[in-house]
Amino acid sequence: MGPGVEWEQLSSKDRQADERQELVTVKHEPFNAETPPAALASARTPTASFFVRSNYAEPELSRATHTVAVEGAVAHPFTLKVAELARGPLRTLPVTLECAGNGRTSMTPLPVGEPWQQGALGTAVWGGVPLAQVLQQAGVKPGAVELLVEGADGEGSRRFARALPMAKALHPDTLLALEMNGAPLTRAHGAPVRLLVPGWYGMASVKWVTRLEVLTRPFEGYYQRERYIYDTQDGAPAEPVTRMQVKSLITSPAEGARVAPGPVVVQGMAWSGERRVVRVEVAVNGGDSWQAATLLETPRPSAWVRWAFTWEGAKAGRHTLRARATDEAGDTQPERAPWNRLGYGNNAVQVRVVEVG
Amino acid sequence: MGPGVEWEQLSSKDRQADERQELVTVKHEPFNAETPPAALASARTPTASFFVRSNYAEPELSRATHTVAVEGAVAHPFTLKVAELARGPLRTLPVTLECAGNGRTSMTPLPVGEPWQQGALGTAVWGGVPLAQVLQQAGVKPGAVELLVEGADGEGSRRFARALPMAKALHPDTLLALEMNGAPLTRAHGAPVRLLVPGWYGMASVKWVTRLEVLTRPFEGYYQRERYIYDTQDGAPAEPVTRMQVKSLITSPAEGARVAPGPVVVQGMAWSGERRVVRVEVAVNGGDSWQAATLLETPRPSAWVRWAFTWEGAKAGRHTLRARATDEAGDTQPERAPWNRLGYGNNAVQVRVVEVG
Repeated sequence: MGPGVEWEQLSSKDRQADERQELVTVKHEPFNAETPPAALASARTPTASFFVRSNYAEPELSRATHTVAVEGAVAHPFTLKVAELARGPLRTLPVTLECAGNGRTSMTPLPVGEPWQQGALGTAVWGGVPLAQVLQQAGVKPGAVELLVEGADGEGSRRFARALPMAKALHPDTLLALEMNGAPLTRAHGAPVRLLVPGWYGMASVKWVTRLEVLTRPFEGYYQRERYIYDTQDGAPAEPVTRMQVKSLITSPAEGARVAPGPVVVQGMAWSGERRVVRVEVAVNGGDSWQAATLLETPRPSAWVRWAFTWEGAKAGRHTLRARATDEAGDTQPERAPWNRLGYGNNAVQVRVVEVG
Repeated sequence: MGPGVEWEQLSSKDRQADERQELVTVKHEPFNAETPPAALASARTPTASFFVRSNYAEPELSRATHTVAVEGAVAHPFTLKVAELARGPLRTLPVTLECAGNGRTSMTPLPVGEPWQQGALGTAVWGGVPLAQVLQQAGVKPGAVELLVEGADGEGSRRFARALPMAKALHPDTLLALEMNGAPLTRAHGAPVRLLVPGWYGMASVKWVTRLEVLTRPFEGYYQRERYIYDTQDGAPAEPVTRMQVKSLITSPAEGARVAPGPVVVQGMAWSGERRVVRVEVAVNGGDSWQAATLLETPRPSAWVRWAFTWEGAKAGRHTLRARATDEAGDTQPERAPWNRLGYGNNAVQVRVVEVG
């Protein structure tokens, strides 16, 4: 299903306003917004409710004429016509994207950066062409170490750009994505073409891609060395942010919700970048008493899995609920995530306060 | 102003229900409830909105006949008739009471215990007789080290009881309180007589006092050695919880509030047990940029002081606000309070999320 004629007839500004009304605005210029809590309760996040993270104003690119330069350490540099790419068969994958700064407001001391609570998160079915296919066409030369991916968004001479290790760039699930939830990408989500790096925090999935450059030396750009890094300020060199750490979210009951006494079904999502979630546990009230929740579908790497837990005999009064996920590598959410200056990768267990009665 | 005839004619149960409706219930039996956020914005917390912390069901004692035993290492043990005490002149003091567990839900890992958010806090004008006066009448013997104060509340053979060092018991501001905000104590707040220990967390201000015992050895009771202790689980012996640590609260804008762009007046309270607050600072958004707020009255020890800060040029979007207080001893609120197993004394800087636009 593509956007209808009526949609295309709307002015660009009207379309943008329409897209934004389902979101929880964090910043107006550039537009940054969270997925509303209710939308996080669906297995797939509707595009109109899917969080938006942009570092600059959203470029408006032509679906018909946009091209991507494929260059650097390749045998056959070429210019990729996106409209042609869209004609071929697309690989589709459900993938969870989480902003690296999601949960920043829960870190102490409060780091600088956009004040994301827990809604810089969503799961869509993405459709695209494996990046490996495009790189194969160009012929990656020996000595390649990273793929630089540049977006059209920027200011002055700076463009948003990140690099991926070649192994990740060549992974069959790493896509040049053209579709989201069965429709062409919207402008906010990188139309007409974005990178989709399953399992990595959102900054790797560069939107509005204009250029792919195979590098023989590690990329030293601003968004690789100055931002989206774990700066723990302990003297160790800061590492770039990469894969999403194991995490879970309680979607029901909502924060501050009032529920009836008796059995209460607690539900949520759990995910881990490049890994399957194997276990979700719930603790009612404080302390260290964790009980197993049920996974509601077969977990797959890099996409959230829904889970449920029946809280038996909830008594009147205020209670807290916590969930924690464990992945196939044995990583479990920490009670407190390691602090870093820019506030990335907060996968700490969250406390949900609910009222019974 | 005392309670009117109509009030007295209500049944005990109706009175209780009436008292409880202005509060945010945390637990029904025994009744525990927070001061609602709006009530925390007044210099004095109305009695009906003042948080209630009880470890057991509320005893119903007679104002006319209730007595307090004064015994132990005293020259002249005697039985204090509370009705007679009420006939004398009363000393009145504005004093902030905070539950030791206030802010527990913000501690990580989440400790066991009542899930207090930030409303186990209030400031009233208390009227009573200095405890020193009563102890002087009894004649404290040499060798006295602590005063045991026992309440009528309990279960089986256990009564709620805490001990104070003699120096604190003899401080002229430590009261046997009979009035709160100009009216006789209500049942929930310890009628007809409670201890009031200015500057200490609420557990020291024993309600429904039945017995004062001068001790020559430190008290080893449950609420002195097993609860209301800082159990840091680092091998050091746990210390009893005593004075309130320096802390502040933002009362306006409220959490999640939407405010208009432009200058925004940020207001709140700050307090420190037994000490004056000397400075409150506010940080807009994350990082370490703190600006001085204005104290709106002359600070006094153990009572909160109101403060205000004008946030200039607030721009549309989501922002965070933080406040931190410093007291005359130079203690400043930490970004993260030391964790302890039972979750007491959380005076960490809080993050307030607001929306401008």
